[in-house]
Amino acid sequence: MGPHPAVAAIRLAVRRVLHDLLTEHHRAPAAVPHALPHELPPPPLVLVACSGGADSMALASALAFESPKLGIRAGGVTVDHGLQPGSDARAAEVVQRLRELGLDPVDSVAVTVGRTGGPEAAARDARYAALDTAAERHGAAAVLLGHTRDDQAETVLLGLARGSGIRSLSGMAAVSGAGGRYRRPFLELDRQTARKACMVQSLPVWDDPHNADPAYTRSRLRHEGLPALEKALGKGVVEALARTAQLSRDDADALDSWAGQAEATVRDATGLLECAKLYALPPAVRRRILRRAAIDAGAPAGSLFARHIEEVDRLITGWRGQGAINLPGKVVAQRQGGRLVIRQG
Amino acid sequence: MGPHPAVAAIRLAVRRVLHDLLTEHHRAPAAVPHALPHELPPPPLVLVACSGGADSMALASALAFESPKLGIRAGGVTVDHGLQPGSDARAAEVVQRLRELGLDPVDSVAVTVGRTGGPEAAARDARYAALDTAAERHGAAAVLLGHTRDDQAETVLLGLARGSGIRSLSGMAAVSGAGGRYRRPFLELDRQTARKACMVQSLPVWDDPHNADPAYTRSRLRHEGLPALEKALGKGVVEALARTAQLSRDDADALDSWAGQAEATVRDATGLLECAKLYALPPAVRRRILRRAAIDAGAPAGSLFARHIEEVDRLITGWRGQGAINLPGKVVAQRQGGRLVIRQG
Repeated sequence: MGPHPAVAAIRLAVRRVLHDLLTEHHRAPAAVPHALPHELPPPPLVLVACSGGADSMALASALAFESPKLGIRAGGVTVDHGLQPGSDARAAEVVQRLRELGLDPVDSVAVTVGRTGGPEAAARDARYAALDTAAERHGAAAVLLGHTRDDQAETVLLGLARGSGIRSLSGMAAVSGAGGRYRRPFLELDRQTARKACMVQSLPVWDDPHNADPAYTRSRLRHEGLPALEKALGKGVVEALARTAQLSRDDADALDSWAGQAEATVRDATGLLECAKLYALPPAVRRRILRRAAIDAGAPAGSLFARHIEEVDRLITGWRGQGAINLPGKVVAQRQGGRLVIRQG
Repeated sequence: MGPHPAVAAIRLAVRRVLHDLLTEHHRAPAAVPHALPHELPPPPLVLVACSGGADSMALASALAFESPKLGIRAGGVTVDHGLQPGSDARAAEVVQRLRELGLDPVDSVAVTVGRTGGPEAAARDARYAALDTAAERHGAAAVLLGHTRDDQAETVLLGLARGSGIRSLSGMAAVSGAGGRYRRPFLELDRQTARKACMVQSLPVWDDPHNADPAYTRSRLRHEGLPALEKALGKGVVEALARTAQLSRDDADALDSWAGQAEATVRDATGLLECAKLYALPPAVRRRILRRAAIDAGAPAGSLFARHIEEVDRLITGWRGQGAINLPGKVVAQRQGGRLVIRQG
């Protein structure tokens, strides 16, 4: 008799990612600069980032099961955000559980969460910095993250609320970070499956009280927003949102590459943007070039909204002699003699 | 003392659209084939499509106010869908109200709603067919529709629920239909403003019971889904969704035009799609070419989902000798000798 379907599903998802990693690993001899021509690089180390919650515990269990069969070393990292009393004891407990699964090495890393960008963003920044450091310390080929399709759907809705275009609808990538370090094997798997897999494997899981705290936008979305949307639109909403993420990502990538290529053709000999040439481009491409130019001039990407770019765009499409436009980061955009000048003022 | 801000807002929105129409009208002498070179075409007729609800009554009142100042003739059409007892009497009442606003001509058109695509789609199809006919009968330059920013937000969420990509996120266009016949002046105005404008002008409005009927997806979205989403994500959700619509539309247009141009470069001398050339394109562009090819071969656009196109795409990106793929409309896609053959089988 095979494993429970939920366990089979989490293992398959992890197996696919490990296969990808092995393929990349064997294609990249540069990772082992002193290897002899016919010598295979040593087996890669894959870490799982584990909070002790159901998603990442399921991920850890699947990694522990699949990695030996593929000759991959498997370890784990848990991050102690220090945001709740007793978080250090919990981190120690997670370390213990990961070791019991057979993972080695297993680290607990304590971080200090700042305030930049709000509590959720600050915690995320601190977490990824700690995971980066851990991956580098251990020479890990990859860090697996337990984000599920439900997390992806929430991320798409959070992006939608920004109203800043399709890049913010594209959610989390299956592969991200420096050199594709971060992998998300569960991005097409629902949260319920991960939870079920923990249950049938008798894995204790920890429910982060933050996940149910209505002070957090994501928590409100999870417990109120998405269920109401499902009630109105039907059960397929989570899947539809996740599919939207993938399609939006591909579309945003294609348009970014188009804008990158088009940019060179709209600059004059001195490197200034020519309004007439910009005008001839599709609006979607032109606005991407303008956004990139503003960022290159020093505007912080996170503070640059669609309405800023629209205003700059009107220097090209609705020119009636308007003055300089102030952008975040003290960047100024103005039209001068048929050229667009965007620089820190 | 000027008008109430809500009335000023609806009038400004209509004035802008009428200005656009006049500019187009004077640019298009072809509309009056026998005009002398210096003779201006006769004043255009603009119709308002009016259900008697707050949005379209507000629109009718603004059209009645603004059109004489611009030398535009203004009329109205109301469509009797025959879906509720007494709908004919209500249509007659709307006709009466539009005449009282000074609109002329005013028509009531009774339609028979079919069943194709579900009750909402069938009613919409019947309505637009009737409006098209009315516009042609009167030689109208445009038909104004009362869709607000709230309607737009709902439309984006309905598109999101399909999970079929950014075209379905792009909502309703400000200008659509044959020759740009349909105009939506209120697409950036919220429903509350339209309602307020009716109130302060003492215009009686009719609340369609369908709008509150939880049997309709849009009604559930309006009364439950969107409010819950606003509660989770904040008050700016409607605006963000409307902005997403505009950005998605521009992006989808740009990618469609890219795909249209790229298509010619990936066909061989016999017109077949070459897999190697398709492979080299960005996924977003390639999948649009595949979708278009399937539709050209006879697949109904409405039944062709993202997962169909993904499966065809795997003939190119994940070729392992798989067999023919069945698509809606009895269209078959298969790979033969490095070419993709998509045709009705």
